[in-house]
Amino acid sequence: MDFNIFRKKDENVFPLPERLSTDKEDLFCYGFDASSMQGAPSAIVKPVSTDEVSKVVAYANKQRTPVVPRGAGTGMTGGSVPLNDAIILSLDGMNRILDIDDRNMIAVVEPGVINGYLQEKLEGKGLFYPPDPASMNFCTLGGNVAENAGGPRAIKYGVTRDYVLGLEVVLPDGRVMMTGGKTYKNVVGYDLTRLIVGSEGTLCVVTKIFLKILPMPEETVTLLCTYSRLDEAASAITKITSSGIIPRVLEFMDEESVRAVENYKNFGLPLDAEAMLLVEVDGSHAAAMQDAEKIAKICTSQNGQVSIAEDMFAQQRLWEARRAISPALYRIKPTKINEDIVVPRGRIPEMLQSLRAISERYNLKIVNFGHAGDGNIHVNVMTDKNDREEYERAGKAVEDIFKATLKLEGTISGEHGVGLTKKQFLGMELSETSIEMMKAVKNIFDPNGIMNPGKIFQAG
Amino acid sequence: MDFNIFRKKDENVFPLPERLSTDKEDLFCYGFDASSMQGAPSAIVKPVSTDEVSKVVAYANKQRTPVVPRGAGTGMTGGSVPLNDAIILSLDGMNRILDIDDRNMIAVVEPGVINGYLQEKLEGKGLFYPPDPASMNFCTLGGNVAENAGGPRAIKYGVTRDYVLGLEVVLPDGRVMMTGGKTYKNVVGYDLTRLIVGSEGTLCVVTKIFLKILPMPEETVTLLCTYSRLDEAASAITKITSSGIIPRVLEFMDEESVRAVENYKNFGLPLDAEAMLLVEVDGSHAAAMQDAEKIAKICTSQNGQVSIAEDMFAQQRLWEARRAISPALYRIKPTKINEDIVVPRGRIPEMLQSLRAISERYNLKIVNFGHAGDGNIHVNVMTDKNDREEYERAGKAVEDIFKATLKLEGTISGEHGVGLTKKQFLGMELSETSIEMMKAVKNIFDPNGIMNPGKIFQAG
Repeated sequence: MDFNIFRKKDENVFPLPERLSTDKEDLFCYGFDASSMQGAPSAIVKPVSTDEVSKVVAYANKQRTPVVPRGAGTGMTGGSVPLNDAIILSLDGMNRILDIDDRNMIAVVEPGVINGYLQEKLEGKGLFYPPDPASMNFCTLGGNVAENAGGPRAIKYGVTRDYVLGLEVVLPDGRVMMTGGKTYKNVVGYDLTRLIVGSEGTLCVVTKIFLKILPMPEETVTLLCTYSRLDEAASAITKITSSGIIPRVLEFMDEESVRAVENYKNFGLPLDAEAMLLVEVDGSHAAAMQDAEKIAKICTSQNGQVSIAEDMFAQQRLWEARRAISPALYRIKPTKINEDIVVPRGRIPEMLQSLRAISERYNLKIVNFGHAGDGNIHVNVMTDKNDREEYERAGKAVEDIFKATLKLEGTISGEHGVGLTKKQFLGMELSETSIEMMKAVKNIFDPNGIMNPGKIFQAG
Repeated sequence: MDFNIFRKKDENVFPLPERLSTDKEDLFCYGFDASSMQGAPSAIVKPVSTDEVSKVVAYANKQRTPVVPRGAGTGMTGGSVPLNDAIILSLDGMNRILDIDDRNMIAVVEPGVINGYLQEKLEGKGLFYPPDPASMNFCTLGGNVAENAGGPRAIKYGVTRDYVLGLEVVLPDGRVMMTGGKTYKNVVGYDLTRLIVGSEGTLCVVTKIFLKILPMPEETVTLLCTYSRLDEAASAITKITSSGIIPRVLEFMDEESVRAVENYKNFGLPLDAEAMLLVEVDGSHAAAMQDAEKIAKICTSQNGQVSIAEDMFAQQRLWEARRAISPALYRIKPTKINEDIVVPRGRIPEMLQSLRAISERYNLKIVNFGHAGDGNIHVNVMTDKNDREEYERAGKAVEDIFKATLKLEGTISGEHGVGLTKKQFLGMELSETSIEMMKAVKNIFDPNGIMNPGKIFQAG
C-alpha cells in the first residue's frame, strides 16, 4: 500500500491523505476492542462522508487491501480487530443525527452516532429507541447494526434488526446502495437490509441508518426480586412469561453475580440469595402500575422478596446493581471469558444445571446472568490469562458450554456475533451447506475478500 | 419432462409418480391465484414430506424444469401462477402442526398449515400468533413466509418475518438446509432466515417453519369511529400514534369504502362519513380498558363518533364491517386492481390527496382503506376488465399511483410482494445496483433458475 500524498495523479495513491493516520499510538489504540484481542493495522482512516468512504473502499478494493470498519470498539468477539495489514475505517467521524422525524416516527443517523446519545436526544422529545446494549453509552449505532445488538429490553421490543428500516451502504467496489427506506413495511425484492444487519462488517460499509422509533411509554416500573432458591426464581420466570404481560425487562443474576455485586458495592442484597430477578414493565400509568402489581404477586408466590421502585431515583439504584456485575466480576478473577449463549427460554433451568456441572468438572468459577426472558444467558468463565494451565482449561470449559447449549437446541451467540473468537466453533452450530451458502453471499458482495477478512468464517 | 412411471430405473423418470397429477381440472385449478392471472402448468405434485420435496426439486433441477411452490393461492401478485411449462409443487399436503411448545413459546409447523387453523389451535391454549392477513382463514403459513405477510395487527406486533425464528428449506439441488432455530435471538452467521422470508418461492422450498408465539392478551377492546371530515380522521390517526399507546389495530376506511360497505350490508354507518377508523387495544384487563378510554377521548376530540365494543359479539360486528369492504367493492365495478402501497405514516394525508387527484385525472373511482398505523394503504382502482379502454386507463393510473408513492418516500408493496404483477415496476423503486445484488443472491441459491422463474425480476 502506498500512502504517498505527493504523486496525486496516480490511482495507486491513497485518495484521502487528510483523513489518514499511521501514528503508532493510533495504530495501537485502533488495534483492539472489548474482546481484548490485539491486531496491527497499517493505517487508520477517518472518513466524514459517504463519498469519502466510497473513495477509500474502492481504492482498497483495487489494491486488494483489507478494510476493517470500526465504531467504538465495544464488540466482544473481536469483530473490529484487524488481521494482517488492514486499513481501519473508523466511522466515529460520521456521527451526525441527520433527522429525528416525529411525524413519521423515523430517525436517520450516521453510523458513528453513539446509541446513548440518540436515546438522550429522543427522550427530550418524548421518543424512544428500545435497543439498549450494555455498552450503550459508548457503542455506535453502526456497530449495533453490524452485530445486530440486543439488550435487556429485547424481550418486549426486539433487537436492532427490528428497528432498521433501511440502510445506505458502500459496496467494496465503491458503489453506494440503498436498501429498504422510510416505510414500516416493505416487501419489494429480497430483504438485503436484514442480510446486512448482523453481517459484522464483512459485506459492505454502512453509511446511513434509517431507524424506526417509538413514543416513550408513559410509565416504567422496576421490580427487584431475590430468591433463596434458584428453582423458585426459574419458576417465577416461567410464570411471568406466560402471564400475558410482556415485561420490558426480565433480567436474571445467579448466586455468584449477586454476591460479587454486593461485595463490590453495598446494595443490601442478601448474600445467601441463589438468584435475583430485575423486572420492568411499561405502558400507560395505570397499565404499568397494574402489571407491576401482578408481577410482584407472581414473584412473591414463588417465595421471592420483592422491592418495587416507582420513581426514577429508585429505578437507577436497582439498575446500578445490575450494571455493577461486569466490573464486580473482576474481583473474582482478572480474566473473564464472556459468552452469550441462548437456549429456548423454557430450558434455562437445564442450561444452568449443565453450567454447574461444567464448573465442577473444570474446577472453574462460572458466573451467569443475563436476559432470562429471551433465554439469553451471559456465561462468564472466570480465569487468569497469565495462568496458562487454567486458561487452557477455561477454553475447554467454553467448548463444553457450547456443546451443552447446542444439545438444548440453543445457539452459541445471541448478541455478540462470531467475529474472531467464535469462528472456530461455527461448524458446531451451522451445517456445511449453510456455511457454504453464507460464504457464497459474502463472495457476491465482496469478491476480492477485502471486507473485514478472517471474521465469522475460518480461512479456506 | 417425462412423467412415465414404468421405466423406474431411469434417472430421467419422475421420482414421485404417486404424488403427481396431470388431470386437466388440476392443471386449471392450480394455474391461477387471487391475482386472477392464469398460467398453464404441466403437472401438479403434492409431496407430503421434506424428503419427497427434495426428490422432486432435485429431479426438476436436473431436467431444468421450473418449479412453482404453492400454498393456498391467495397471493395478490401472481407469485404462484406458473409461467411456461412448470411443475406446481403444491404444499397443502404438508399441513401438520408438528409442535405447540408453550414452555418455550414456539410452534413448529409444516408450510401447508392454514394460518387461521394455527390461530385456533393456539387460542385453545391461551396462546397467540399475531400475523393476520385478510385471507387468514384460507392462506397457508408457507405462503405467509414466502410473501412476508402482514395484516391489521402488524402495527403493534409486526409481520411474519418477526415471528420466524428458523426454517428448514430444500435447496434446488435437493439439499436440506436449516436456518436459525428455536431461540429468540441468534447472531451466528448471516441471517439466511430473513433473506428467505419474502423471497416469493424464488430461492428454495420451505418445508418446516419455527415460529415464535406469544401468550394471548387478557383483554382486547375494539373501537369504531366515524368522521364527517377526512382531515379530522387523519389528525386522529397522528394523535393516536403519538399518544404512547401502541394500538394493536388502527385501520382506516375512506368515504367510498364506508358507503360501499353500508350499501352492501346495513351496519348503520353514516353515509355522509368521509372516513372511518377501526381501532383495537389489548393487554391486561385494566390496561386495555384504560387505553381504550384514552383512545376514545382522542377520537372524540377530533370530532369523531365513537362506539366501543367490549364483548366478542360486538367486536365481531365491527370487524364484519371492515371485512365486508372487499366483497362490497365489486358492487361498484366488476374489476378491482388492488395495490398495497406504503408511505411514511405521517404522509398518509398527502398520499390520499394524490390519490384523489389521480382518480380525477383518469376519471376512475379509487377506493382506499387499510393499515393506517403502518402507512400501508390498500388502493383499489375500480374498473372493468372487459372495457379495454378503461382497463388501460386504470393501468396508467396504477403507474401514477406508484410514482406518487415513491415521491413521498414510500414503497410499491408493503404486504403483497412483487410476483408477476409488479415486476415491471421494480426498477422504479430499486436501483440497478440493488437489483443486480438480488439477482446474484438468487443465482447462488438457484444457479439453474428453476425456482419460480419470471417472478420479482424482469427477464434478462
